[in-house]
Amino acid sequence: MTGSTGIRTSTGDGVRTVHFTRPEQRNAMDGAMFTAYYTALAEADDDPEVRAIVVTGDGDWFCSGAAPDTLHLLAGDDAPDLETALGHPPHLPMALRKPLIAAVNGGAAGLGLAQALFADVRFLAEGARLSTAFSRLGLIGEYGTAWLLPRLVGVGAAMDLLLSARKIDAAEAAALGLAQHVLPRAEVLPAAQEYARGLAAHCSPRSMAIIKQQVWRGLDLDGPRAVAESVRLMGESLRAPDFQAAVQRLGQRGPVGFPPLPPNRSA
Amino acid sequence: MTGSTGIRTSTGDGVRTVHFTRPEQRNAMDGAMFTAYYTALAEADDDPEVRAIVVTGDGDWFCSGAAPDTLHLLAGDDAPDLETALGHPPHLPMALRKPLIAAVNGGAAGLGLAQALFADVRFLAEGARLSTAFSRLGLIGEYGTAWLLPRLVGVGAAMDLLLSARKIDAAEAAALGLAQHVLPRAEVLPAAQEYARGLAAHCSPRSMAIIKQQVWRGLDLDGPRAVAESVRLMGESLRAPDFQAAVQRLGQRGPVGFPPLPPNRSA
Amino acid sequence: MTGSTGIRTSTGDGVRTVHFTRPEQRNAMDGAMFTAYYTALAEADDDPEVRAIVVTGDGDWFCSGAAPDTLHLLAGDDAPDLETALGHPPHLPMALRKPLIAAVNGGAAGLGLAQALFADVRFLAEGARLSTAFSRLGLIGEYGTAWLLPRLVGVGAAMDLLLSARKIDAAEAAALGLAQHVLPRAEVLPAAQEYARGLAAHCSPRSMAIIKQQVWRGLDLDGPRAVAESVRLMGESLRAPDFQAAVQRLGQRGPVGFPPLPPNRSA
Repeated sequence: MTGSTGIRTSTGDGVRTVHFTRPEQRNAMDGAMFTAYYTALAEADDDPEVRAIVVTGDGDWFCSGAAPDTLHLLAGDDAPDLETALGHPPHLPMALRKPLIAAVNGGAAGLGLAQALFADVRFLAEGARLSTAFSRLGLIGEYGTAWLLPRLVGVGAAMDLLLSARKIDAAEAAALGLAQHVLPRAEVLPAAQEYARGLAAHCSPRSMAIIKQQVWRGLDLDGPRAVAESVRLMGESLRAPDFQAAVQRLGQRGPVGFPPLPPNRSA
Repeated sequence: MTGSTGIRTSTGDGVRTVHFTRPEQRNAMDGAMFTAYYTALAEADDDPEVRAIVVTGDGDWFCSGAAPDTLHLLAGDDAPDLETALGHPPHLPMALRKPLIAAVNGGAAGLGLAQALFADVRFLAEGARLSTAFSRLGLIGEYGTAWLLPRLVGVGAAMDLLLSARKIDAAEAAALGLAQHVLPRAEVLPAAQEYARGLAAHCSPRSMAIIKQQVWRGLDLDGPRAVAESVRLMGESLRAPDFQAAVQRLGQRGPVGFPPLPPNRSA
Repeated sequence: MTGSTGIRTSTGDGVRTVHFTRPEQRNAMDGAMFTAYYTALAEADDDPEVRAIVVTGDGDWFCSGAAPDTLHLLAGDDAPDLETALGHPPHLPMALRKPLIAAVNGGAAGLGLAQALFADVRFLAEGARLSTAFSRLGLIGEYGTAWLLPRLVGVGAAMDLLLSARKIDAAEAAALGLAQHVLPRAEVLPAAQEYARGLAAHCSPRSMAIIKQQVWRGLDLDGPRAVAESVRLMGESLRAPDFQAAVQRLGQRGPVGFPPLPPNRSA
């Protein structure tokens, strides 16, 4: 599926891939592209055929940030609320039921870095450089990056990256834990898709949806409550069809064949 | 001490070592073994002779997870509450007053990995492979692992390990911060015991009990409150016998001879 | 500026450098020096000429901890409240509006390590060794270190360092994420000052003040609230003079020339 909004999608083997398609603008996001991206994510989350989502950029950049007109729009006196402007909550990627894998094919800065950080797992191209960018533009830790980065790389590295807005390369990103997998540029998207196909084939969609919620919500829970909730969820999962299917396949080769997630009524 | 429950303990130099003794079942935990392990931990915490605890597995595995009968038991319609079934809270290891050191001699998966994560410090064998396992079985982030892993290795790595349930080797575990010390397999238990003997000889049992509580509870506290509480605890510790004993020994060689913890009445 | 209190300051290019000046006492802090250090930080935060702060030690140590008389003072039955004794809140460094960069030129232990951890970014000398020290003195995780370390290096490494009080070298500190930049000893202070001059020249003081608050306060916020707050702060920043100045300079070489922070009335 292609559109003039800067977003293209394709689907195969249970994996929906979302492309940023404005390489000549370094995939900078204007308001229409931002909205189209979030709409593509919401549709993937709702589609029973899709079990995992990959996002990547065409060309040399993953996403260089917000396009100037987006900033000017949001800066105006009559600027709309961001959620109203998007038609989605700004943290939508963290609220998806399905895993979102970022195939960061090249540079990412500002809003572009934020979109990479919102993904669950990051594959990163060896030549790519990343920057928060905000402090050099008179901006702040946008889209929750000042909340999220310390939970990805620790407070010290987060402060370093946010205060200085210095560019880091892929090796440093990997050492910090910002990227989980670093590969030559040409292998980044194939590897991310292969990883996503593995999730689609071997991992229970129900399990992944609950685990995502456990991790994201667990960041805001205290330990005893989180453990108690995991015990309750464990009991439910032991009585659910996915576990029964897995037990019947124990010791056999090949995928279990877990059932898909139903459409997301609340989306 | 040996039992038919799959748990054996030994004690020396202030260190209680707890062994999983079912190598032929890859130290999979059935309900009796799970209970016996937690009872051994509670007894060690209560015994004034013990100042640090080491847990390890006999054979090639540390612990491969829950035994099938445990899962079937917990899956039943008349399944008991996990805490009732265990006779202990599921997060008991995190509530111990004494340091728990995991000597992860080999593979750990599912509940076995959770037990390793519950320890305060992890020594890991070079050949060992670790997996969360849950998502491939239709299960969820059990025993608080979805809460704990992000606090050990950051959100990105935690999502990667929990969603995919892929196996990681010891080198990756060390790079992620999942293991603090990686060694050849034959050296793992001796090194963990040496480390634990060092704690027993040189570190105040009172200090370690308070520090453990500060770290685990501190994960759920806000910063100003945690700093204020540390100032209050500092004042108490400066007036306690352990600090007085340390001051009198300043500049001298050899252990201070800190007093033991009293039995744990509330256990 | 020099004083007999063990603190000396100098200023250039928007960077205030604070030196610990008692190398013969390994820069151990007595009460007067502790107070003088915090007063120097508060003054730097209030001075519009200063945009970034560097702290370092003269000689072979960064800071070896609290001087014995400090401990004896705080241990007395009539010991003053720490905040009263200091004239500042104990966590003052985390409450500064301006970035604090630690140039850890040598060893740091106990209170000295805590001061390094309170900084936003750490440069560390290759030969330096670090230790929490507390558990071997019968003390506890002082000055919030038991709260802060897990957020810097993860729970496992934090437990290891706090329980054992073992000394770690610079390579391990870097691998853990405890130091952001490791350099030969002679280059540590120059590199930290160069980094600070870069912040002063290229980064908006307003942005850095807000980002610091976002990161530190964000550790105690839940995700949705933190994202919502960042959206609100983004809107404000898009309408503030710093962003307007940056936009006008887009594509041009050289610093934007961001306005300084006004004096801190509330300090």
